[in-house]
Amino acid sequence: MKELMNRFWAGEHRALARVISTVENELPEKDEILKEIYTKTGGAYILGVTGSPGAGKSSLVDSLVKEIRKSKELVGIVAVDPTSPFTGGAILGDRIRMNTHALDQGVFIRSMGTRGSLGGLAKTTKEVVKVMDAFGMDWIIIETVGVGQAELDIMYIADSTIVVLTPGAGDSIQTMKAGIMEIADIFAINKCDLPGADSIEMEVQLMLNFRDDHIKWRPPVVKTSTYNAGQGIGELLDAVKKHRSYLSEKGIFLKKRQERASNEVLDIINYQWDRLVRQHLGKPGPVSEMLAKVSAREVDPYTASSMIVKQIIEGADFQKNCP
Amino acid sequence: MKELMNRFWAGEHRALARVISTVENELPEKDEILKEIYTKTGGAYILGVTGSPGAGKSSLVDSLVKEIRKSKELVGIVAVDPTSPFTGGAILGDRIRMNTHALDQGVFIRSMGTRGSLGGLAKTTKEVVKVMDAFGMDWIIIETVGVGQAELDIMYIADSTIVVLTPGAGDSIQTMKAGIMEIADIFAINKCDLPGADSIEMEVQLMLNFRDDHIKWRPPVVKTSTYNAGQGIGELLDAVKKHRSYLSEKGIFLKKRQERASNEVLDIINYQWDRLVRQHLGKPGPVSEMLAKVSAREVDPYTASSMIVKQIIEGADFQKNCP
Repeated sequence: MKELMNRFWAGEHRALARVISTVENELPEKDEILKEIYTKTGGAYILGVTGSPGAGKSSLVDSLVKEIRKSKELVGIVAVDPTSPFTGGAILGDRIRMNTHALDQGVFIRSMGTRGSLGGLAKTTKEVVKVMDAFGMDWIIIETVGVGQAELDIMYIADSTIVVLTPGAGDSIQTMKAGIMEIADIFAINKCDLPGADSIEMEVQLMLNFRDDHIKWRPPVVKTSTYNAGQGIGELLDAVKKHRSYLSEKGIFLKKRQERASNEVLDIINYQWDRLVRQHLGKPGPVSEMLAKVSAREVDPYTASSMIVKQIIEGADFQKNCP
Repeated sequence: MKELMNRFWAGEHRALARVISTVENELPEKDEILKEIYTKTGGAYILGVTGSPGAGKSSLVDSLVKEIRKSKELVGIVAVDPTSPFTGGAILGDRIRMNTHALDQGVFIRSMGTRGSLGGLAKTTKEVVKVMDAFGMDWIIIETVGVGQAELDIMYIADSTIVVLTPGAGDSIQTMKAGIMEIADIFAINKCDLPGADSIEMEVQLMLNFRDDHIKWRPPVVKTSTYNAGQGIGELLDAVKKHRSYLSEKGIFLKKRQERASNEVLDIINYQWDRLVRQHLGKPGPVSEMLAKVSAREVDPYTASSMIVKQIIEGADFQKNCP
């Protein structure tokens, strides 16, 4: 463990990969690692990229990474694909994409499948992002298919979010999940060389006209293409940087990060409490007896809860200072 | 309060209505009432009736109630319509339906709208059911539109659930939410005098053939009509009674009720804990200072959580016995 972390702090990609696997697979060292790295996090800017399957997100992210790398900044990519039934597929995708940046030591890509539940995915993604952040990445890009609530949850981690749309079949604004449209800080109309790019841009602008929650920040709409030499990629990165400046200047960036820190502590508090309660429920004793009485309608659940909370707290591993 | 509860226990419908309103509107006396009635609950059999809007659920429930009343058993009806934007509409519906059973003191109907959030509706419904149960109802019928997760949550309260389908437009099995089909213990093909009743029955039977979770209980499919003298209503009630016997004989009924009691206690425990935590977070003090340190990345959230839990427990209103 100590040796692994030494190599991690020295900037070794293989150590980074192993630390991520440890976190992702919930190995026993996970808690210790997250504890050790926390104070080194907060340096990375987190960019979310979401959109329907087939919108060309991966290619767009690759192009964006090349653009970022012109300034030598370090980039981590977390590709989340909860719709893929095969974790193997995600790993294969990794290898293929790795080749694009194979010679570039400033880029690290990690794909995540749906090992656990969808609900757990947002939590794990958050943890993996934290590992990359502590490692020293300047940018972390989270790429995910924008289909369900789980993906929306993942996107709440991002400082800025790009929603990728494409012209043509089935990708009209009307067919997009409302939630996805609302989390966009920037819209990218990708594959903009295809017919229909102008009309989808108009649809988005029209929709933005009807939104009143963007008095301060109206999401720019950028047309992009990753075909041949690419198009609009520099403009897209500029839009992200502009949003980043906006968040900093208005104090939103700091406020969001503070909220996130508080929520994280709350989550851990509730998790610790839940574990404490379950320890008592699982074994025979006064708590189980109380539950049986409720079930037999001898005691009401309110009285029972108060007594159980009291018992858990008194039995907890927290010493009260006695006079 | 005491006088109201005396009238409630004496079986006065107007007192029942006022107790339900107290619970539904979250008045201060609510907790005390729920506490007082709990040990008197558990006598009622809870029947859920769900299906698409326009499936004729209300008429079917009314017919079913008339059938039940032949044996003089007392019936409470909770009509939940989260899709209705007007609570007034629900109240009007109440009045109209009340007329059907106006002279029958053995029937009590209560409609519930979406005052609060959808999430809260399941909780409130559960509480209203408990009030009717303690009042002495033999049957409680929960009637709800089967459209979303909230309705599914409501249906978990029921001992038996009837899913109502109708022949024709848009009500094909394919268009039904999968979750709704899975909670059915009994299917009613209502408006069975309309063309297409046989084909929808075949669809349901076919679907049931492919289900392997009903090795023990295969949901019967009953054709019903509330038109003129009605049709299949007695058969539908028999199917419910058969399911009830099945649950009792296999011990499932008792097991489900025990699980429900445990879950209820857990919910209250977590609610009490959450309230305790929020009391500390809201005000300046060591807990807020700790949160600020996490936000500034001076302390990791794991260390912070442990210290906060410790502080909350020590500061809690639970006295530890000191030597």
